[in-house]
Amino acid sequence: MSVTAARGFVAGGVSAGIRRAALDVALVRSVPRAVGGAVWTTNRVQAAPVEVSRRHLETAEPQAVVVNAGVANAATGPGGVADAERTAAETARLLTLRPEEVVVLSTGVIGVPLPMDRLLSGVEAAASSLSAEGGETAAAAILTTDRGPKLAQAAGSGFAVGGMAKGAGMIHPRLATMLAVLTTDYPLEPGEPDECLRAAVDASFNRISVDGDCSTNDAVVLLANGASGVARTPALDDEFSAALGEVCGSLARQIVEDGEGATVLLEIRVAGASTDEEAVAVARRVATSPLVKTAAFGRDPNWGRVLAAAGSAPWNGGFARLETDRLTVAFDGTKVFDRGAPTGLQPDLRGASVTIELDLGLGISEAAYLASDLTYDYVRLNAEYTT
Amino acid sequence: MSVTAARGFVAGGVSAGIRRAALDVALVRSVPRAVGGAVWTTNRVQAAPVEVSRRHLETAEPQAVVVNAGVANAATGPGGVADAERTAAETARLLTLRPEEVVVLSTGVIGVPLPMDRLLSGVEAAASSLSAEGGETAAAAILTTDRGPKLAQAAGSGFAVGGMAKGAGMIHPRLATMLAVLTTDYPLEPGEPDECLRAAVDASFNRISVDGDCSTNDAVVLLANGASGVARTPALDDEFSAALGEVCGSLARQIVEDGEGATVLLEIRVAGASTDEEAVAVARRVATSPLVKTAAFGRDPNWGRVLAAAGSAPWNGGFARLETDRLTVAFDGTKVFDRGAPTGLQPDLRGASVTIELDLGLGISEAAYLASDLTYDYVRLNAEYTT
Repeated sequence: MSVTAARGFVAGGVSAGIRRAALDVALVRSVPRAVGGAVWTTNRVQAAPVEVSRRHLETAEPQAVVVNAGVANAATGPGGVADAERTAAETARLLTLRPEEVVVLSTGVIGVPLPMDRLLSGVEAAASSLSAEGGETAAAAILTTDRGPKLAQAAGSGFAVGGMAKGAGMIHPRLATMLAVLTTDYPLEPGEPDECLRAAVDASFNRISVDGDCSTNDAVVLLANGASGVARTPALDDEFSAALGEVCGSLARQIVEDGEGATVLLEIRVAGASTDEEAVAVARRVATSPLVKTAAFGRDPNWGRVLAAAGSAPWNGGFARLETDRLTVAFDGTKVFDRGAPTGLQPDLRGASVTIELDLGLGISEAAYLASDLTYDYVRLNAEYTT
Repeated sequence: MSVTAARGFVAGGVSAGIRRAALDVALVRSVPRAVGGAVWTTNRVQAAPVEVSRRHLETAEPQAVVVNAGVANAATGPGGVADAERTAAETARLLTLRPEEVVVLSTGVIGVPLPMDRLLSGVEAAASSLSAEGGETAAAAILTTDRGPKLAQAAGSGFAVGGMAKGAGMIHPRLATMLAVLTTDYPLEPGEPDECLRAAVDASFNRISVDGDCSTNDAVVLLANGASGVARTPALDDEFSAALGEVCGSLARQIVEDGEGATVLLEIRVAGASTDEEAVAVARRVATSPLVKTAAFGRDPNWGRVLAAAGSAPWNGGFARLETDRLTVAFDGTKVFDRGAPTGLQPDLRGASVTIELDLGLGISEAAYLASDLTYDYVRLNAEYTT
């Protein structure tokens, strides 16, 4: 399942000794020729595998994705780029592909060179282990300090979309990265995976926050091999988009639920904004406010902090538009602030998730965001380890 | 001392029972006619006293500042505006001023109405207590959960600048605000206090971060009464600007040192940026990164997190320009990353402050930022209280 839920994909995961005894090298391959696309981190500091894979995708359609966990190969200079290229070349040799047809992804410690001997032995073992049942093993081999694997799949009329992910945040000190690999047997044309991904990622992975930090290695890759044999129609295209969105949404939610030290899932919903951009800006600001996130940890319906955060959402060189006397705020459906005035109501926030709804009362634009709370364990996980 | 360091200013502080037995109402007045200006929070949600005082300053030169702690009078609707206006009117009556000549500031709980009877009795008592020795009492009466008062003063050739502040962050649940009141006996013309403040605030209060949250009540007010009697010269003007900058810088530093749960002061220095704006954007992003701040708490020279933060500094709709192979990072003077490559050096971060220097190697622009670390106590202070 996971990346092998769709027909024509094989995957495998092995332990190469990069992360002690854990699984740490995953390989996913399309058996029929595939087309593909990717969305990359926008961080100005980009890991070597991001640089190399992005270049590969400019000249070829990707047929395989090789992932290692434990070492991010970021901030490693020209040697790091050479290592990523060699990983692609070796993977290509083993699978009888061209190096440009291989996407290389890494996650782990920043600033440390890849242990190439171990990695390449791992790639060889992973190539021998490829099977249509390997999706779950592959999903386990891309993790770092995640509490567990993140898998999702959705079935359409005669086709499927599957995926695996890891992250979020930079969980272990110096560990980076949110990674996701998505596969489908729906037939797409070259260039289409990029388009489809952009929309799906924007509504899922770009709407989650654990700590607001954007890593050097973030990547989402989609391979589409058409092995389902379905004939495309506009209705099926819509179905495919919905399935891709569902898989991305599920993986994104799993990432936040597994957020560092998280005890509660925050769903921020903004409505009534003047523009879509402002709706997203306000939702993101509330989702990343340390004060809102610590209040959530304390199960405190602290709408004062929500107001203060919403009122200072960066947008267009200033703050997103908001008028206090048009603003309504609800926690889990209970209005605490109604068009500029406190209601005095006290919602009970003892569930596993808390929904914070803001209606700006200005327009018709909406946006949603998922976030984790800010807890003692978040601080412990990120402060305790000393280099 | 504090706001009474300069000639011609009287101040006082009393306990009005808004914050139990603590001092909670402060009054500062210029005896000779003063000119003044203010810098206000840019949050879209603005507290009633901010709205009222901003309007007052549009039509009159401020002669007195009245501050209450305990209740922020924010998100209180039209009743809150009426309360702020009444506070100004009563203060004006007691001091024989016009209401527009009074600046009203509040800090404390959001969404709760001011206890007007107690507040007005307090204002009356504060007015009777005004004296040239009252600066320290006034500084003690504007605090909420600050560990102690924040005072600063600087002497010029024949004149002085003094100030008091409170904050930072929204320390207690639902408590807001960074407030500063500055006074000088240097002679300024109408309009000049605003200009001087803007530059001084930009280099001080706008370059600190405890949690990146911007409150609904933030305000910095400057009164200048010319009581020193010095004759202005360009050299003295420069001296005044430097003294104002020194007082603002000192108060800003005290606020960060007293940051919620802080154990270490972070000084972020960015050099070699392409533009001043980008230098500030990078410094701010590093100063507000939860990962950098938890690493600082763990005294971990985690340059990977610094890189990841610096590479994702919001600027101009994207991220500030940065090239990994031109970037150098040092902790407390020890280079850990040198033009794209790790140095392997391990700085010792056991001091009371940690300096993180980034040289982007792109241009000549620089910026500095002060921040506190992110600790268990930050989470405790902000999560423990449940409404």
